[in-house]
Amino acid sequence: MSNMQDIADKAGVSRATVSRVLSDHPSVKAATRKKVLHWVKELGYEPNLIAQSLAGNSTNIIGVIVPEIAYPFFSEIIEAIESQAFYEGYSVIICNTNRSLEKEKNILTGLNKRKVDGIIAVPVSTEFSLNSYRKLNIPVTMITKKVEGFHSIYISHYRGGELMAKHFLSVGFRKIGYIGPVKKSTSAIKFQGLRDYLLANGIELTDVIECDPPANMNATGVSENVKNYILVRGIQSEVLLANDDISACEAISALQMQGISVPHDIAVAGFDNSLLAREMNPKLTSLAQPLEMIGKKAVEVLLDQINYHTQPQMYEMESRVVIRESTVSWNVQQS
Amino acid sequence: MSNMQDIADKAGVSRATVSRVLSDHPSVKAATRKKVLHWVKELGYEPNLIAQSLAGNSTNIIGVIVPEIAYPFFSEIIEAIESQAFYEGYSVIICNTNRSLEKEKNILTGLNKRKVDGIIAVPVSTEFSLNSYRKLNIPVTMITKKVEGFHSIYISHYRGGELMAKHFLSVGFRKIGYIGPVKKSTSAIKFQGLRDYLLANGIELTDVIECDPPANMNATGVSENVKNYILVRGIQSEVLLANDDISACEAISALQMQGISVPHDIAVAGFDNSLLAREMNPKLTSLAQPLEMIGKKAVEVLLDQINYHTQPQMYEMESRVVIRESTVSWNVQQS
Repeated sequence: MSNMQDIADKAGVSRATVSRVLSDHPSVKAATRKKVLHWVKELGYEPNLIAQSLAGNSTNIIGVIVPEIAYPFFSEIIEAIESQAFYEGYSVIICNTNRSLEKEKNILTGLNKRKVDGIIAVPVSTEFSLNSYRKLNIPVTMITKKVEGFHSIYISHYRGGELMAKHFLSVGFRKIGYIGPVKKSTSAIKFQGLRDYLLANGIELTDVIECDPPANMNATGVSENVKNYILVRGIQSEVLLANDDISACEAISALQMQGISVPHDIAVAGFDNSLLAREMNPKLTSLAQPLEMIGKKAVEVLLDQINYHTQPQMYEMESRVVIRESTVSWNVQQS
Repeated sequence: MSNMQDIADKAGVSRATVSRVLSDHPSVKAATRKKVLHWVKELGYEPNLIAQSLAGNSTNIIGVIVPEIAYPFFSEIIEAIESQAFYEGYSVIICNTNRSLEKEKNILTGLNKRKVDGIIAVPVSTEFSLNSYRKLNIPVTMITKKVEGFHSIYISHYRGGELMAKHFLSVGFRKIGYIGPVKKSTSAIKFQGLRDYLLANGIELTDVIECDPPANMNATGVSENVKNYILVRGIQSEVLLANDDISACEAISALQMQGISVPHDIAVAGFDNSLLAREMNPKLTSLAQPLEMIGKKAVEVLLDQINYHTQPQMYEMESRVVIRESTVSWNVQQS
């Protein structure tokens, strides 16, 4: 049986254009439309699917569920999802869980009633949320977390921690510290990657400033923890990896309040490469998750799931260290 | 004729609870539900409206249109809208115009087809967008801009500029500069408020670094403009007001690159009080628009429009200067 790509190839257009023609999107030129519909007929492409779409059995709405819309990391992914979905003729209903399992349940009930065609979600918990998603009978693509039994698009946080460790060693740092959760959270996996890579190079972490996973972006508690750590033990590290960009900013403030200047006295790196990292002062070295690509890929994978009932697959995306002043000036200063 | 508030008063619950009962929201307790429905009947409250809602003539979907989802200012408003809408039993379809009039038109066509109950929008242009909105025959509430003929929720940018001028004078600054657009944009109105307030106090602006209104948050051009201004003319001001927080961050970087330290050599203030302002180093004095209140109020005004066909009204919200290190340390240093 032929699929969208076959039609695209024959008509000499992109797969997305075929999708837009089928979803009756206004942006397609009449000539292109005619050409595509010709090949739809010629190749006998899934007439039921089209009939279904024309009969209004699909709503062309995607539900998107995130823990915190205004967190820069998520808002950048949402922007990419909206852009790709719009291009494919879909609207996006946006839902905020506030990391509450109960709100997540209510959201899923609501999206189910609305008969959305599919859901892209950052589940509140990879342990306690999943039953609610499984019960839905709606295609679901999970993002930013690897969730067994679901299509998942994510980066390896372990690999992210390793990449940072590698960067630190290449700059010449030997006394390395970490700020963030160390157990029972996705974030803690970065810590393991960092620690293991360093151990394999014969280096133990100099400082570990443990913090709880943040309740939300305005309640990280990092400032207070860093301040207390400095007062009680003092920091011996030459560089600190913070668990995310906001934590890095808070750590930098706390350090400067104690008269420790970044990056002159100590280097700091973050995680997420959000707007904060790009606009911070000093500009922050940070691990970049490919947010735009995660958003686009999520829409693509979800639509394939909706149209072809594909089996769950894991998509691990490449991350990379974006090097900025907060870790390299140190090197310049010391050498 | 009685309204939701009358029912709320009689039943001893909030107006929101009445709304949730009428929209069949799952979060209402059975006892409360019964009490509200009793008074709905007793007061003969708009039986048609309920019938309409129960018959499914309303979709309980709100469209939200913004220029850039990932811009912290907008993502914080979106989060507040989603939260309030969810509370009232509505879902939110989120749409990004990328400041394109054409995409805006396509979005409006799409939302119209979906039969959303209402739209909350930041229009691309207060000049060229409005006809598309007028043609819709769907309730629309405009936010962040004052738009004649539409319900509008906004702050006075002129007043914002005045408030900053007042803060600068109270700190003791007399040489004051501005970075941003100076003509033909909402942003330029802040400039006028700043300039006029200072002139009324016998002070002319010392430096005006003109910038185009930003195409998007990654293309402000502010860094380059500030650098060129420094190299060509030099900055004489004691404090600079930047048109938004991102511009303030870019200006601070450009200044430091030229060896001018903030706030020791020069103070800088921003506009929006976004996450950047709170996490920046130094923490940034900024004009706070009440983002959460704008979001909540927008939902409230839109629902009143949907339910009672209210006539367009203007809601000017209070803004305030949030004072942080970037302008007050200067004072401490100099005194």
